[in-house]
Amino acid sequence: MVRGTRVIVKTTKIPEATIMRLAVYSRFLEHLRKHDTVTTSSGTIAEGAGVTPAQVRKDLAYFGEFGTRGVGYNVEELCGHIRRILGLNKKWPSVLVGAGKLGSALALYEGFNIRGFHIVGVFDVDPDPVGNRFGSIKVLPMEYLDEVIEKEQVQIGIITVPAVAAQDVGERLVEAGIKAILNFSPHVINLPVDIIVRHVDFSLHLEVLTFNLNSRRTIK
Amino acid sequence: MVRGTRVIVKTTKIPEATIMRLAVYSRFLEHLRKHDTVTTSSGTIAEGAGVTPAQVRKDLAYFGEFGTRGVGYNVEELCGHIRRILGLNKKWPSVLVGAGKLGSALALYEGFNIRGFHIVGVFDVDPDPVGNRFGSIKVLPMEYLDEVIEKEQVQIGIITVPAVAAQDVGERLVEAGIKAILNFSPHVINLPVDIIVRHVDFSLHLEVLTFNLNSRRTIK
Repeated sequence: MVRGTRVIVKTTKIPEATIMRLAVYSRFLEHLRKHDTVTTSSGTIAEGAGVTPAQVRKDLAYFGEFGTRGVGYNVEELCGHIRRILGLNKKWPSVLVGAGKLGSALALYEGFNIRGFHIVGVFDVDPDPVGNRFGSIKVLPMEYLDEVIEKEQVQIGIITVPAVAAQDVGERLVEAGIKAILNFSPHVINLPVDIIVRHVDFSLHLEVLTFNLNSRRTIK
Repeated sequence: MVRGTRVIVKTTKIPEATIMRLAVYSRFLEHLRKHDTVTTSSGTIAEGAGVTPAQVRKDLAYFGEFGTRGVGYNVEELCGHIRRILGLNKKWPSVLVGAGKLGSALALYEGFNIRGFHIVGVFDVDPDPVGNRFGSIKVLPMEYLDEVIEKEQVQIGIITVPAVAAQDVGERLVEAGIKAILNFSPHVINLPVDIIVRHVDFSLHLEVLTFNLNSRRTIK
């Protein structure tokens, strides 16, 4: 295999934590690229991402051999490889259902655009927010869901409806052809096994903080 | 050591992924408790949390010995232990700075209340949202920050301001006595090393989805 020219996803199950870290490495590599850094090391990437150099090497090893011994990694190349691993060399238009406060915050979230994600449709079951505009996007009634998903070839749905409505909206998105769902509602949803569902629970992050505040002394 | 009666945080560095998983296990254990389940196994917890039984045992082993061989874990007890490990047996009032769309969504986020987190103050640098109400909380100008933090003994700050303002707000919170920060702004902030900072980047979650959608076939 020619070093660093092909990316092969092994059949081994890749831990989700590895994927999250790759996403963090790619952010750091893009930062280096912007500052015209040409080569880097696992040590530098590790420092930038807050992990160990061994972890960086182990995470990358899932996807082939990168870098050259004694020289390190070419920033531009490695950045491109990780973007391809994460699928970021393609467009992933997404739709969002739930045009309340959280939905409108996400529809306008700067972080999505920075990473190349575009929300192409915002929907609500409630007629109230329908017609509202978030930037260039107009909130549409649910009747237009299938049309937008088909026209824009959308595979990703984002759910920001209240807990009680999450399951119904999840099913509705799957019916309309959605393959992967990011669920921001504090309610776990059950969908067919071939649908990739990720549940975002903000309080998990707070619990990492309270653990750290708390563990500054022994717990009795 | 009497089994399961004391929780000791070893001096070993606990991986952050372990803490995140403990938070997930505790959610599942609470679900079991609500359904009057008395004992459970690492296999059942693993299934509920989407990990392997070995992972559950390894994560718990950082904090002592729990459960009884051949019997399993007492749901109520294990739930209590994990809550104590995460510091959830204490109150952690928090303040939020940035009363825009995301800030107001978080101030009203059902998921925080479910886990016992309470936002005791919402602040904004902009006079526009000052005076608005989110449930029982009124948005206050920044001048009241120190007073609320001192009075309510707040250690946690949540930042939901635009990227350009994040660093300033972070420094302001630290000056006011905040020890841990959850940063929702898509801008990394630099603060003294003794301050615990956690950066929430919604697009990381989307990248886990695109990785999974993409890796359904080999990447060339």
